[in-house]
Amino acid sequence: MVSKRIQKALEGNSAIRAMFVEGKQMAEKYGVQNVYDFSLGNPATPAPAALNDAIRELLDEADAKGDAGSLELHGYMENSGYKDVRTAIAENLNQRFGTEFDDHNIIMTVGAAGGLNIIFKTILDPGDEVIVFAPFFGEYRQYAANFDAALVTVNPDLETFQPDLADFEANITEKTKALIVNTPNNPTGVIYKPETMRQIAAILEKKQAEYGHDIYLVSDEPYRELVYDGNQEDFLTKYYKNTLVGYSFSKSLSLPGERIGYVAVPNEAADAEDLIRGIEISNRTLGFVNAPSLMQKAVARCLEEKTDVAFYDENRSMLYEGLTKLGFTCIKPEGAFYLWMKSPVEDENEFVNEGKKFHLLLVKGGAFGCPGYVRLAYCVSHETIKNAMPAFAKLAEVYGLG
Amino acid sequence: MVSKRIQKALEGNSAIRAMFVEGKQMAEKYGVQNVYDFSLGNPATPAPAALNDAIRELLDEADAKGDAGSLELHGYMENSGYKDVRTAIAENLNQRFGTEFDDHNIIMTVGAAGGLNIIFKTILDPGDEVIVFAPFFGEYRQYAANFDAALVTVNPDLETFQPDLADFEANITEKTKALIVNTPNNPTGVIYKPETMRQIAAILEKKQAEYGHDIYLVSDEPYRELVYDGNQEDFLTKYYKNTLVGYSFSKSLSLPGERIGYVAVPNEAADAEDLIRGIEISNRTLGFVNAPSLMQKAVARCLEEKTDVAFYDENRSMLYEGLTKLGFTCIKPEGAFYLWMKSPVEDENEFVNEGKKFHLLLVKGGAFGCPGYVRLAYCVSHETIKNAMPAFAKLAEVYGLG
Repeated sequence: MVSKRIQKALEGNSAIRAMFVEGKQMAEKYGVQNVYDFSLGNPATPAPAALNDAIRELLDEADAKGDAGSLELHGYMENSGYKDVRTAIAENLNQRFGTEFDDHNIIMTVGAAGGLNIIFKTILDPGDEVIVFAPFFGEYRQYAANFDAALVTVNPDLETFQPDLADFEANITEKTKALIVNTPNNPTGVIYKPETMRQIAAILEKKQAEYGHDIYLVSDEPYRELVYDGNQEDFLTKYYKNTLVGYSFSKSLSLPGERIGYVAVPNEAADAEDLIRGIEISNRTLGFVNAPSLMQKAVARCLEEKTDVAFYDENRSMLYEGLTKLGFTCIKPEGAFYLWMKSPVEDENEFVNEGKKFHLLLVKGGAFGCPGYVRLAYCVSHETIKNAMPAFAKLAEVYGLG
Repeated sequence: MVSKRIQKALEGNSAIRAMFVEGKQMAEKYGVQNVYDFSLGNPATPAPAALNDAIRELLDEADAKGDAGSLELHGYMENSGYKDVRTAIAENLNQRFGTEFDDHNIIMTVGAAGGLNIIFKTILDPGDEVIVFAPFFGEYRQYAANFDAALVTVNPDLETFQPDLADFEANITEKTKALIVNTPNNPTGVIYKPETMRQIAAILEKKQAEYGHDIYLVSDEPYRELVYDGNQEDFLTKYYKNTLVGYSFSKSLSLPGERIGYVAVPNEAADAEDLIRGIEISNRTLGFVNAPSLMQKAVARCLEEKTDVAFYDENRSMLYEGLTKLGFTCIKPEGAFYLWMKSPVEDENEFVNEGKKFHLLLVKGGAFGCPGYVRLAYCVSHETIKNAMPAFAKLAEVYGLG
């Protein structure tokens, strides 16, 4: 006798996660080298060697200190995380982005998913509205629903997949409490340029004044460092005061299974101190308690490490050029590791199913609130892309492309 | 502009956590050796050496495998956790408790706090009632409130601090969806004996039949292995079919900061398969995604390890005997690492404040739904207990005890 919400979820569930399981089954059946799984955003580049080395150092240092070392490394700390870890992150951000954080602006979280949920728990009342720009990471639906808030979707410009700002402005209401921004974007790979961010900020400022209450910009930043073609890493607090940042090390350090990230709350946000304390309380009461302790210390020693952007960039070029050459219509990715492709038929479910016949695993755009398209996660080996091309060619043939 | 719930939480917040911060401040001011902090359940015995060794082995094995090793160790897996880890835990439980689990009955979680929340998300609808036996871990209030359920408290027998079973039966209503059982108990240290568990099960069976719907027993088991005086480790699924277990390695392996535990769902529970899938979905959608990956693998290699029960047992004797000799009224702990003491004055806040004057940090019983008492966490060094005794003697003198 499960709850009504879960009954409904059991019928739907995550298209991405279902594909993940299906991919594993297909790999067992046909051999992993014969299945081209573009379904999941699981990094393909290993964690930098510095990560495992940092963990080893931490263990050695703890063992050298005896009992106290173990208790410190694996024990409870403040719900917001170790102070030295938060200080290191604050200083790193200040240096890179000109922010003015100290340890108290940073709350260590169980990944960005944990971070977004504790932000939402802190700011959302039942009936509040959260705006997202379609297409969007489908889990935002669940995160808003966790706090009985409604997700309001804003249409994209179908040429550029930048948000339609007129539609954005028209969708802000008295009940709007937050906007989620995810740039570089999952699933489209586009980046919102500084000018776009300034326009978004101006609209938010205007509507805050109009309605007389705060509207928070929640920046979901797991792909912050994954930018190509000379695009710059950006940090959104500089555009708009009421910006709350949810970051994850999953992609930048290739450790998505470890669930480690942070929330940053700038001093200039309205009620910043209440927000910080509220987010810390939410971290505890929602059941996270604190971010995993050893991994907090480990990432703090790897803040200068970078993921292999060139690796993904090569995949991006191979895939984008290969697919457009075959006649598919693709949005050129500028960041993250996703490619957004138009389905050659209106119902992209049909296209996804056709792809499976050639062992190509794509995710339907409907999962991201944008039917008629599919997402390809190109965080795969170079070989997967190379070997998948003949399969894509056959798929293109089905639809008379090229 | 934080949410209404958080506004309220900012006023209240956790008495235990507030004490944790106050304790650190007092330690800075007076020196850590001059503050006797009995406020937090942070283990005092280090993690077994096998834990850090297991982590080192896992890192070495991963490095030897190259990129694939890192991606496997730190990457995504099923939301329920690594299959090999779940199999190891299932087999360990089967061997120790005669259960019949396989990997699919086990969902790896972000500690027991994460586990209880994903259980609650899976079974609770708004307006449902969750019964707890007072005194109880105060966070249960938040966990039920996260899903808009009401907490219904059942009185204890004030001699034994076993639940008053007549009061329990009287409090079950049409809306009762779950009972939380926490044995060995936080904050009292008492254990519910097999006969008590059989009586609880009989009442639940009767009420299930009467109301025609399932009532789940949610067993919160972080202290399962911490039992004294020849008491046996127990596993509650054998008493009642609809038992869902939330376990944490925080205490048994002394790694509370790492946030690692599991939920076990027995096949005989009603709608077991829906529950398992629902809990897996909830793990994802509530923002946990999965339990920390490296730590999953590490605990799976330490299932035969035991915490130093003799260490806590020595503390238990020293504290219980010392305090009763001074004239305090204490419940003799049978498990966990908490001692439950009657306040010599009706308002235990006054007593707690008086204790602080002697640098003794105790937690008020009101935080556990049972005013007039205080909790002492004796997961501290032997020295802390020894050195605290003169301070307790002065405190006893204030109230004319002894």
